[in-house]
Amino acid sequence: MRGSVFVGTSLDGFIARADGGLDFLPTDDSESHGFEEFLASVDGLVMGRKTYDFVADSGEWFYGRKPVFVLTSRDLGEPPEGAIVERVSGSPEDVARLLDVRGIRDAYIDGGSTVQQFLRAGLIQRLIVTRVPVLIGSGISLFGALEDDILLRHVATRQFKSGLVQSEYEVAGQPTGEHRGE
Amino acid sequence: MRGSVFVGTSLDGFIARADGGLDFLPTDDSESHGFEEFLASVDGLVMGRKTYDFVADSGEWFYGRKPVFVLTSRDLGEPPEGAIVERVSGSPEDVARLLDVRGIRDAYIDGGSTVQQFLRAGLIQRLIVTRVPVLIGSGISLFGALEDDILLRHVATRQFKSGLVQSEYEVAGQPTGEHRGE
Repeated sequence: MRGSVFVGTSLDGFIARADGGLDFLPTDDSESHGFEEFLASVDGLVMGRKTYDFVADSGEWFYGRKPVFVLTSRDLGEPPEGAIVERVSGSPEDVARLLDVRGIRDAYIDGGSTVQQFLRAGLIQRLIVTRVPVLIGSGISLFGALEDDILLRHVATRQFKSGLVQSEYEVAGQPTGEHRGE
Repeated sequence: MRGSVFVGTSLDGFIARADGGLDFLPTDDSESHGFEEFLASVDGLVMGRKTYDFVADSGEWFYGRKPVFVLTSRDLGEPPEGAIVERVSGSPEDVARLLDVRGIRDAYIDGGSTVQQFLRAGLIQRLIVTRVPVLIGSGISLFGALEDDILLRHVATRQFKSGLVQSEYEVAGQPTGEHRGE
């Protein structure tokens, strides 16, 4: 399984306000930022429970017939119409093994803590981060603590009329550890 | 006084490691990222004491004959050769008034907490942020808490062969506060 992230953040690196609010993201749908193309490049999704509940409650289902694996120990309830949803639990490695068994080669990893866990586990290979031109000061961070640096390779950056800047990176690996004085 | 920031950060938003280390920044001097042009666009600098000590101790002085105002209550010691250095204290507004009196119209605001204080005080008008393609997980953040959102206007983004991505923003203002539920 190869994990990919596609996410919008404020310039100061928040994917949502502390209460989950996304009001700082642009609402104008007329400018395409490549989400459809990105979605077409994955076979399935992994997301945390909070993200799933947020999307399931939004009344819109963005993922068509792509299977969505939700990290949770609780019952998922009735999925949105047309959605293919499965409950999973365990470590990122456990989830990656399950997805391998299911034939999911490219997975969209979504949700704040889920992305951080998969990054720490070395299970994210591609990052597409779109920066919204605003500072919000606090909220839910895209990135979190790491045991070691993660080196990236810049693939491409696009800028949009609205002021959004989208950069794509591939994970290049982890350095030898000498940086951290270990 | 118009404040500008020119700074490099990891993709996760750190300007230095927790111990001040900058080893994650590129060391190849052959690629120019516009620092000289930026420096030519300002009349003087404001920096925190830690940043000043770090630069003064580095053996290199990057600012030529531009006056450098250092926020500190302690004696500065002997300045580097050729440097024009002055001690200042007080609030960002106090410093801005002093710089106005000195005829400094465009000031380069540098150093982690100094940038955050001047941003909060509404004294930064231009941000040039260069992202290094690495995640370091922890360290000294470029941005900090804010009372209100700060709206930005994207001016331009440049990408470099090394993988650095440099975006320039102008501060567009603060929203009415309705976002924050106030």
